Amino acid sequence: MTTAGQSKGGLDGIVVGQTAISEVDGEHGKLTYHGYLIGELAETALYEEVVHLLWYGHLPTQSELTTLRARMRAQRALPDAVLRVIRALPTTAEPMDVLRTAVSAYGVAVNIQGKPTQEQAIALTALFPTILAAFQRLRSGQEPVAPRDDLDHAANYLYMLTGQAPADNHVRSLNSYLILLADHDMNASTFTARAIASTDSDMCSAITGAVGALKGPLHGGAPALVLNMLNEIGTADNVRPWLTNALDKKQKIMGMGHRVYKTYDPRAEILREMARRASTPEFFALAQKTEEVALEEIHRRKPDERIWTNVEFYSAAVLYSVGLPGDLFTPTFGVARVAGWTAHVLEQVSNNRLIRPAVQYIGPRGATWTPIDQRTGA
Amino acid sequence: MTTAGQSKGGLDGIVVGQTAISEVDGEHGKLTYHGYLIGELAETALYEEVVHLLWYGHLPTQSELTTLRARMRAQRALPDAVLRVIRALPTTAEPMDVLRTAVSAYGVAVNIQGKPTQEQAIALTALFPTILAAFQRLRSGQEPVAPRDDLDHAANYLYMLTGQAPADNHVRSLNSYLILLADHDMNASTFTARAIASTDSDMCSAITGAVGALKGPLHGGAPALVLNMLNEIGTADNVRPWLTNALDKKQKIMGMGHRVYKTYDPRAEILREMARRASTPEFFALAQKTEEVALEEIHRRKPDERIWTNVEFYSAAVLYSVGLPGDLFTPTFGVARVAGWTAHVLEQVSNNRLIRPAVQYIGPRGATWTPIDQRTGA
Repeated sequence: MTTAGQSKGGLDGIVVGQTAISEVDGEHGKLTYHGYLIGELAETALYEEVVHLLWYGHLPTQSELTTLRARMRAQRALPDAVLRVIRALPTTAEPMDVLRTAVSAYGVAVNIQGKPTQEQAIALTALFPTILAAFQRLRSGQEPVAPRDDLDHAANYLYMLTGQAPADNHVRSLNSYLILLADHDMNASTFTARAIASTDSDMCSAITGAVGALKGPLHGGAPALVLNMLNEIGTADNVRPWLTNALDKKQKIMGMGHRVYKTYDPRAEILREMARRASTPEFFALAQKTEEVALEEIHRRKPDERIWTNVEFYSAAVLYSVGLPGDLFTPTFGVARVAGWTAHVLEQVSNNRLIRPAVQYIGPRGATWTPIDQRTGA
Repeated sequence: MTTAGQSKGGLDGIVVGQTAISEVDGEHGKLTYHGYLIGELAETALYEEVVHLLWYGHLPTQSELTTLRARMRAQRALPDAVLRVIRALPTTAEPMDVLRTAVSAYGVAVNIQGKPTQEQAIALTALFPTILAAFQRLRSGQEPVAPRDDLDHAANYLYMLTGQAPADNHVRSLNSYLILLADHDMNASTFTARAIASTDSDMCSAITGAVGALKGPLHGGAPALVLNMLNEIGTADNVRPWLTNALDKKQKIMGMGHRVYKTYDPRAEILREMARRASTPEFFALAQKTEEVALEEIHRRKPDERIWTNVEFYSAAVLYSVGLPGDLFTPTFGVARVAGWTAHVLEQVSNNRLIRPAVQYIGPRGATWTPIDQRTGA
């Protein structure tokens, strides 16, 4: 048996398979989708173009994009049963839990069974914003609004949240955010989706599991904590005293450090520019100064550790600036990533092998059954 | 990077961590929980005793068992929001999808957040039968019945399905089945639960994902297909012609072969006795003859392959004989396994490391962005 990774149990560096969807170069801080550098895509493309790239392996022609846009728009409306399920949940619920439940209910409502399909990938990607916007409005005491057929994915999400036409700079920043977060090779939620799909289970089971994995603070569940930190710091003047005090107390600084990137996360660099574009000058100055002082202090205290700004730091700034409440940050990460999850599920099932690892047993052996009246407890 | 398992992508034999919960010895056909052979437990213990063993590492004393029984019974009733969600789903739904959705909704209803707890393990294990029985009754046009506080886990499940006091031989066989299927080291659904929990996500997210993984036919989703096969064969006289014809056509025979066991699955052996006890003589004779001829024919045709009866074969016979419809077989596997899943989640978070493997990139590199009007398609 191969025992690498055994002591730590995290499969660090263990290759679990092959992918042609995206490549993370953690040493050099490079992320590419099918060979395209993420920066070019985020600056220039529409989210739907990148989704096409992830699913089909090439950027769409104008006619392919027209077709995909139409197919996604046709799937945006919530089936009645899913809306009934969302209404059955308490309005105080965590949006991430509502998303997980609604995705599962969608599988029931339209009876998703058997081998995952491209059509299901389109439908789920189209539906995530509608689920979140419906819940956001219901918990604010408003009725959900229907999706708008003349708006692209990012714009329509913002529209369904507020019922208002969104500002152009907000749409552009959110569109870039969705592109940057759409895939990231074998991250924990994508691996979860592939593991579930590897049992020959269905698309909705895989995506429901991925939502649950993304929720964890060690994966996608922490960007709201960056916002909390920035709110607590409050002003640019308070950045250094606050961070010095936090680091003296050995507190973890949110939005810093990554399992794979040992240099500046390429997504963070682009998101910083998106945040600059979408934020008020005061808020952006606070975020930028917090980043600068945090890196300086961390590098001074731990000169041997390669800790840099991660994707969560400026994700929080961007999503806050386009008007999202903090508890929609992680679900909106899901809005981006569902394209990658579904692409990976389709790749997994195209050449499947059940993911079934081994484990080292470290418990007792040779225990002898005793009737209950002769047991003495632990 | 370690590349073992890379070509096949199934993590075969790759050790992903340590466990003290159960040990599978596939070479010798042995399964133990905390050192106890599964056969002793299945013959003698109550499911609740075995659950105690999995969660706490030792068999309970009488007073510990009394406490655990009371705690499980206190959690059997469905929260209103979960029942509303089940009622919102179409009665034609797959029960496995209803289970997945209801477990997710339970996390919303009682707001399960943060580090998984023992109390949550108890609640989820207590709740699985109630969810399935409620749906079974609703789809039959009947109202759900409340759990009965004087019945143990297996008996209460059968009671809630029918509203009738269950037969003793049915209770005994189902109790043994639940024990035999309660854990199985790092199987695909358990690994999924641990991967989700490793992101510091919550207990319900992990268990919802595990339900989705168990659904797959390569894992827990196929026992109903064994029943379909037996129904199609119909009579003992038809066994050999049917199997010969199926094998000539290269059809897969359901309930044969296992990824880990290279000998007779120890659970199948015990389940055969449980099936003998619970079945009509005709049905048991059909099942036994099918097994015998299938093994004989498979071994004659593929003398080098170590294919033996797996757990699904006699699971189907037992669950059919205690009165369950075929589409409740896999969910009832979940009723058993949720004890193991929750034990593994608690073990994972007691010494956590994010499960984040690597992947080999095989796609293109160095692609150059072109504006959409200059693209020529794939």
